[in-house]
Amino acid sequence: MDIEIKKILLDHKEYADKQVTIKGWVRNNRAQKEFGFIDLNDGTAFESVQVVYEDKQLENFREVAKYNVGSALTITGRVVLTPKMKQPFEVKAETIVLEGDSQEDYPIQPKRHTREFLRENAHLRPRTNLFNAVFRVRSVVSFAIHKFFQERNFVYLHSPIITASDAEGAGEMFQVTTLGNTKVEEGHKNDFFGKKANLSVSGQLQAEAFALAFKNVYTFGPTFRAEKSNTSRHASEFWMIEPEIAFADIHDDIQLAEDMIKYTIKDLFEQCASELTFFNKFVEKGLIEKLKNVLDSSFKRITHKEATDILVKNNDQFTIKAEVGEDLATEHEKFLTKYFNGPVFVIDWPKDIKAFYMRMNDDLKTVAAMDLLVPGAGELLGGSQREERLDMLEKRMKEMNVHDEDLWWYKELRKYGGNKHSGYGLGLERMIMYVTGVDNIRDVIPFPRTPKNCEF
Amino acid sequence: MDIEIKKILLDHKEYADKQVTIKGWVRNNRAQKEFGFIDLNDGTAFESVQVVYEDKQLENFREVAKYNVGSALTITGRVVLTPKMKQPFEVKAETIVLEGDSQEDYPIQPKRHTREFLRENAHLRPRTNLFNAVFRVRSVVSFAIHKFFQERNFVYLHSPIITASDAEGAGEMFQVTTLGNTKVEEGHKNDFFGKKANLSVSGQLQAEAFALAFKNVYTFGPTFRAEKSNTSRHASEFWMIEPEIAFADIHDDIQLAEDMIKYTIKDLFEQCASELTFFNKFVEKGLIEKLKNVLDSSFKRITHKEATDILVKNNDQFTIKAEVGEDLATEHEKFLTKYFNGPVFVIDWPKDIKAFYMRMNDDLKTVAAMDLLVPGAGELLGGSQREERLDMLEKRMKEMNVHDEDLWWYKELRKYGGNKHSGYGLGLERMIMYVTGVDNIRDVIPFPRTPKNCEF
Repeated sequence: MDIEIKKILLDHKEYADKQVTIKGWVRNNRAQKEFGFIDLNDGTAFESVQVVYEDKQLENFREVAKYNVGSALTITGRVVLTPKMKQPFEVKAETIVLEGDSQEDYPIQPKRHTREFLRENAHLRPRTNLFNAVFRVRSVVSFAIHKFFQERNFVYLHSPIITASDAEGAGEMFQVTTLGNTKVEEGHKNDFFGKKANLSVSGQLQAEAFALAFKNVYTFGPTFRAEKSNTSRHASEFWMIEPEIAFADIHDDIQLAEDMIKYTIKDLFEQCASELTFFNKFVEKGLIEKLKNVLDSSFKRITHKEATDILVKNNDQFTIKAEVGEDLATEHEKFLTKYFNGPVFVIDWPKDIKAFYMRMNDDLKTVAAMDLLVPGAGELLGGSQREERLDMLEKRMKEMNVHDEDLWWYKELRKYGGNKHSGYGLGLERMIMYVTGVDNIRDVIPFPRTPKNCEF
Repeated sequence: MDIEIKKILLDHKEYADKQVTIKGWVRNNRAQKEFGFIDLNDGTAFESVQVVYEDKQLENFREVAKYNVGSALTITGRVVLTPKMKQPFEVKAETIVLEGDSQEDYPIQPKRHTREFLRENAHLRPRTNLFNAVFRVRSVVSFAIHKFFQERNFVYLHSPIITASDAEGAGEMFQVTTLGNTKVEEGHKNDFFGKKANLSVSGQLQAEAFALAFKNVYTFGPTFRAEKSNTSRHASEFWMIEPEIAFADIHDDIQLAEDMIKYTIKDLFEQCASELTFFNKFVEKGLIEKLKNVLDSSFKRITHKEATDILVKNNDQFTIKAEVGEDLATEHEKFLTKYFNGPVFVIDWPKDIKAFYMRMNDDLKTVAAMDLLVPGAGELLGGSQREERLDMLEKRMKEMNVHDEDLWWYKELRKYGGNKHSGYGLGLERMIMYVTGVDNIRDVIPFPRTPKNCEF
């Protein structure tokens, strides 16, 4: 019977003394004269299974003993419980068939490799413990986020990737063209879309259009930044989740974000216990406690003014001095999460450091924006209530020099039943880094894109 | 109590005579002297709710009577069962509050609009019955596909959008650049990624790398074609689902595809009964029967040779004459699904009309490829077993003039435990068109991109 290793692991007593057929790749092969051990991993679980093979049992014992790490095998054998060992069972091989051999220079040997080396072998690195765990967690977290919104009857919206507007002014954009060897700037009229086209930095504006029809919607898709910043927290291509909710103010928005974060972490504990244990041991000590604390805490909510008041009193601890009305530096974010010993929503930000579409508060100085700061990672997500008053929106667009010819439709949303609505954006990679402890964004993206790096 | 209209609809007897607060947008407002009717839709369900309001009850009766279509309202009232009417209940308004007014020139009036007009108002069209139904179905189908794979322990992989290789040779690609006003072709070294970069046409090759680590994986993301074909079935930007399974041959691949299609349609019947009834009545008569037939049928499997033999015998019926060894035209695909009265997998295609990575059959003339043809829509998905033998792969790459310097890593997968594996690609839009009956791809994408069209 063909069976996934995950299924045996979940219920190994059920399989005691039964014959199973497992198919996977050799992580390690240690042969002695009359017997040997293979660690076989089939990718369905974090754990490998130890297979014992013996000369007296296998016709091809001598060949098996030479199989290189990385080889693909089909192994039929019996499950033997080993209650005194570290692994609860092993498989005693009856037949071993080579499905795909591996050459001796296989780069992923059973030893420690640097993260840099593994990035250069991004096509093979999911075969290591670390990346097996990271990319399964990425998959599980992605699906948990979908479940969270779908269970709440949100409509999943595919916002466009190619766009003609740099709406948010969120940074440099990649241009999309088919002009090839003619001058791009001169030829927009002749280009594929008849105008300048870019890769989207956010699906929010389009999500707003859908929220004003479906009430509750979310996007889940790739977004792009063409900034030449080579940091461990920035990639040129990354995935964002952007819910948008109508008839909802900034406080509803905050509650949704808190519920989503907790739901996702809870689901992760249920689905990926082995992976979290591994990260806790080898990547970030205290990770599990950190995540449990998030589940148990009620997220603090303070205004930007309250936050900076606290920071100013502690300015002797900062390289960059905090100031009321100014943006928060990373060290300030860290201080605040320590100060409150848990996640903190900072709301009501000075209008001048936030985007044009955020709703003006009655003080005419701050906007109904929110950032969620979490211990260890700083800003995890950001959002706002949207300006639904057309006159206020147009004023802000003018002040902030936003080209409005591309946004006629966005303004129209305010003319036709444009009521109160809010939303936020979560960077998937930030979330994966937070829940795994992996500190470089290049190590949570299957094939990362950064300046001068577009291999694979 | 704030409540979604969907919840009242699901359980309207529970809410009989109870007070509810609903929030949504006016689809229609018909006022008489002493009372009026508002059709309110809140986007959580296909159906609107009829609200009755009376002068004697409402202080603001005169204003309410003038609210334009499209206005956003909060309505508190009592649920009254109306067993003799078409709708099972209505809401008798106690208070009506205007949350966002709508101007008189609101484009989406309660009358029939052309699809072309609605495309020009893509920001407002989800407020119509048709697009409310289409985009909810798109969301439900997307999630059903995720559920199908996640329940089977597949790992969801985000394959890269920006890529340096035109691996499949699948057609013209969009170029991604930050060079702006310098000549793009001359400047690849100076461009953002230090080389020519394009928008991906498929995540398959990267999915293969992950399948050879995780066994079963899938992608779900946007893909791009820069072909200037303005047809009702082609868009420049569309979403693909690409599962890839290791230790699996073409027959396992076919079984997976059949199971996925059936699972998705079954889920759709459970989640979107109202929407399917609407499509069946107004978009494609016989749709529901067509989809039920798919659920009940076992998909036929024939070779390309068998298919063309049948077609050649019926060549008097075709404009394009069928030939053994040649590709199938749309009319041939339609004939075959009629001939077998249901979905048909065509396998073992002539190598010269298929991609380089498909596995050569023992006859050295055909490859282990499969296309699924469905009644009404022709090709719904296509896939293949992949060539895992390095020497055969390299021979095919040479014959088909595939640049292999970009694909060193893809070839390496064959050197290191590269065993039998297979996969397929499903175009999400094709699937949505098939299950809704909507015949233009522009009408199943929230904000479609086609040549000379990049609005919103």
